[in-house]
Amino acid sequence: MPTIIDLTSADVRFPTSRHLDGSDAMNTDPDYSAAYVTLETDGEHHGASLVFTIGRGNDVVVAALEALRTHVVGRRIEDLDDVNELSRTLIGDSQLRWLGPEKGVMHMAIGGVVDAAWDLLARQAGKPLWLLLAELTPEELVSTVDFRYLTDAITPEQALTLLTERAEGKAERIEHLRAHGFPAYTTTPGWLGYSDEKLVRLSHEAVEQGFGMIKLKVGNDLDDDVRRLRLARGAVGPGVRVSVDANQRWDVADAIEWMTALAPFSPYWIEEPTSPDDVLGHAAIRAGLGHHGIRVATGEHCQNRVVAKQLMAAGAVDVFQIDATRMGGINELLAVLLLAARYGIPVCPHAGGVGLCEMVQHLAMVDFVAFAGTTEDRYLEYVDHLHEHFTEPVRIADGAYVAPTRPGGGAEMLPASISDHTYPHGIVWAEGTTDSSTDLRENEHR
Amino acid sequence: MPTIIDLTSADVRFPTSRHLDGSDAMNTDPDYSAAYVTLETDGEHHGASLVFTIGRGNDVVVAALEALRTHVVGRRIEDLDDVNELSRTLIGDSQLRWLGPEKGVMHMAIGGVVDAAWDLLARQAGKPLWLLLAELTPEELVSTVDFRYLTDAITPEQALTLLTERAEGKAERIEHLRAHGFPAYTTTPGWLGYSDEKLVRLSHEAVEQGFGMIKLKVGNDLDDDVRRLRLARGAVGPGVRVSVDANQRWDVADAIEWMTALAPFSPYWIEEPTSPDDVLGHAAIRAGLGHHGIRVATGEHCQNRVVAKQLMAAGAVDVFQIDATRMGGINELLAVLLLAARYGIPVCPHAGGVGLCEMVQHLAMVDFVAFAGTTEDRYLEYVDHLHEHFTEPVRIADGAYVAPTRPGGGAEMLPASISDHTYPHGIVWAEGTTDSSTDLRENEHR
Repeated sequence: MPTIIDLTSADVRFPTSRHLDGSDAMNTDPDYSAAYVTLETDGEHHGASLVFTIGRGNDVVVAALEALRTHVVGRRIEDLDDVNELSRTLIGDSQLRWLGPEKGVMHMAIGGVVDAAWDLLARQAGKPLWLLLAELTPEELVSTVDFRYLTDAITPEQALTLLTERAEGKAERIEHLRAHGFPAYTTTPGWLGYSDEKLVRLSHEAVEQGFGMIKLKVGNDLDDDVRRLRLARGAVGPGVRVSVDANQRWDVADAIEWMTALAPFSPYWIEEPTSPDDVLGHAAIRAGLGHHGIRVATGEHCQNRVVAKQLMAAGAVDVFQIDATRMGGINELLAVLLLAARYGIPVCPHAGGVGLCEMVQHLAMVDFVAFAGTTEDRYLEYVDHLHEHFTEPVRIADGAYVAPTRPGGGAEMLPASISDHTYPHGIVWAEGTTDSSTDLRENEHR
Repeated sequence: MPTIIDLTSADVRFPTSRHLDGSDAMNTDPDYSAAYVTLETDGEHHGASLVFTIGRGNDVVVAALEALRTHVVGRRIEDLDDVNELSRTLIGDSQLRWLGPEKGVMHMAIGGVVDAAWDLLARQAGKPLWLLLAELTPEELVSTVDFRYLTDAITPEQALTLLTERAEGKAERIEHLRAHGFPAYTTTPGWLGYSDEKLVRLSHEAVEQGFGMIKLKVGNDLDDDVRRLRLARGAVGPGVRVSVDANQRWDVADAIEWMTALAPFSPYWIEEPTSPDDVLGHAAIRAGLGHHGIRVATGEHCQNRVVAKQLMAAGAVDVFQIDATRMGGINELLAVLLLAARYGIPVCPHAGGVGLCEMVQHLAMVDFVAFAGTTEDRYLEYVDHLHEHFTEPVRIADGAYVAPTRPGGGAEMLPASISDHTYPHGIVWAEGTTDSSTDLRENEHR
């Protein structure tokens, strides 16, 4: 029965803005970063996880992680109930919840700590997280979910019925994952900062690598987007899906107008057309684009299960894109998978950044095994950056994520990667190169 | 032309949990707190503001304020454009917005800094903030608003037309405020921690003091609520409105059932019946309670203008309750006042805590002068706690807020109040009394 004896945190940042990897219409100069958290125990194992950010403000998430230390030190993490209890205690803290409630920095930090506890649980069980989750009974899965504010969509009893039905064929699906992995799509060709030549070359490569879908960033300039989408469509041919992502760039009318202009190139979905908070706006956009066959996708910035519930119940989305570190942790993501199963909405997780692929693949896989029961129209995003910093980097084969085999939740980074990229004193940052965060770095040296 | 030369912050906490002041169904043990921020300049004036929290996590907001220092040092705040530019720069920062976007700790901290700049501007003008705002032209008011994600509700052109129409009679309304103040209601009688005797005595006193409405906290126990509401109704008589506040306690069906049981006592509004994020849930509750004549009110936890837009557009609220320090600052609150004017929704601000009354009164007053044009069905919440810590404590006369006269935005605290209550080393905290935050305090001593 290991007891948590300390929480440690690290401000880890990668200077990705130096090369314009990850540039889009709203996030012009990201430095992919991780507010990294470790739960140290007096036992054999520890738990590790991270909250992904894009640079400035990563220190604020670290401060939020530190504020949670006294909530976890002294706790024992022995079984599922202990993790569920930790999740409920942190999210329900009567003073901390004022800082959201259940959204933004504090909620993301709580998610980081909860996920580190899940990582610890999976290590103790000697299983990759996806398998630990996949082998939970329907009753156990229901126990992970906080149904507060959800019962108008689904009650615990209804959830148990649904998950019991879906449990049929679980063992076969687990074997399927081990043999074939989970389908991926790639955003690697589509960053706004890339030249046309690079876009075409990477699009060809994506097809050769077996991806069934690629995604392009759009929203800066319509003429550019028309040209880039035409080039991409030409490169991949009619049999591969091409989705586009506006990263919240538009108001409702803009989104409909812009996407109508791109409709001739048959984009599969438009992702984040407007504010992630605008449920009714997404519903209006979906109504305005449905006759073009363009789906509406969002979710990577969805703050919690309450907004997810509304997006699905209001018919505002065709595709829901969970993010590994935006919400309050694995428990809340399982609630979202449950809602998606309830409403029949395919979950196509957001990934990329640093560590998001390594983490969210576990959720995509348990979604297939225990919630959705199918991979039809499901894709997990893949971007080929920064995987080398993790103890078990994601592996892609034939356009699919290979099921992880190492125990844990996937977020553990290599010690040298953490120390080299710790901000602002790690070797990568101390070299004094110019970058978008220079002013903040100077501040932190004060 | 003063230049900002430094940003300073303080973690100020009042041990209110020792006496159960401020207790409600969700916030059982608040220590009213302020993440206090000052913009120091090389000129005659400084700017001060605060972000209100209820204890733990106030340090995380302080960390977020500190992360903004490099964004403000070196800026000149000379006129309205400078403040508008500061607001847009902070909210639009391409890396910081990942932490929301536009919600939670980072957004609240940005609001604190923006409001300190407004305070500075008002001091330079030698005017209380409400008057500075009230004297802006319609064009200037429109310039304060970020219309991104709002144009499906109102465009800048439509806003200018609306505000130009409402400008008629402005001078008379300013004089009316100076003569009669702004109508208040009081929550003082209604905390859950109070005895029946205290509830009745304070309800009588509220009527004697001229308040037209009182408010009771509900949601812990239905029998208790029935008894307390009967006592309150008996104490104030039929001519004074009694509202109730559930502080997000219920799911949708619970809210309708519970409030139906309280309907015989004619509650004027039910406040925060469920999650503040649940636009569609509020719409369902409103539909379920309308035939009882019970209004639905929310807004104090409304994260930004996008959710405010939806609550109003979806017919989810009868009353909108702005909070002084939840959103991204005065600019975003002016956007909400504009939306409320557009949809004809009365704004009844949330106040109490520490400093919220002092701050939000300025917004209520400019709402009357420039947006709504009336005080009918408008009330500003009043709670009689902690005013003595401010340089210009609110004054109540005949159940109304007296219009402030000192230059600034109202959030400036007395230096001794700040130092005595600074956490964890101020004299109030260093005395070693037991309280709900003991464990965190120990942590911070590490």
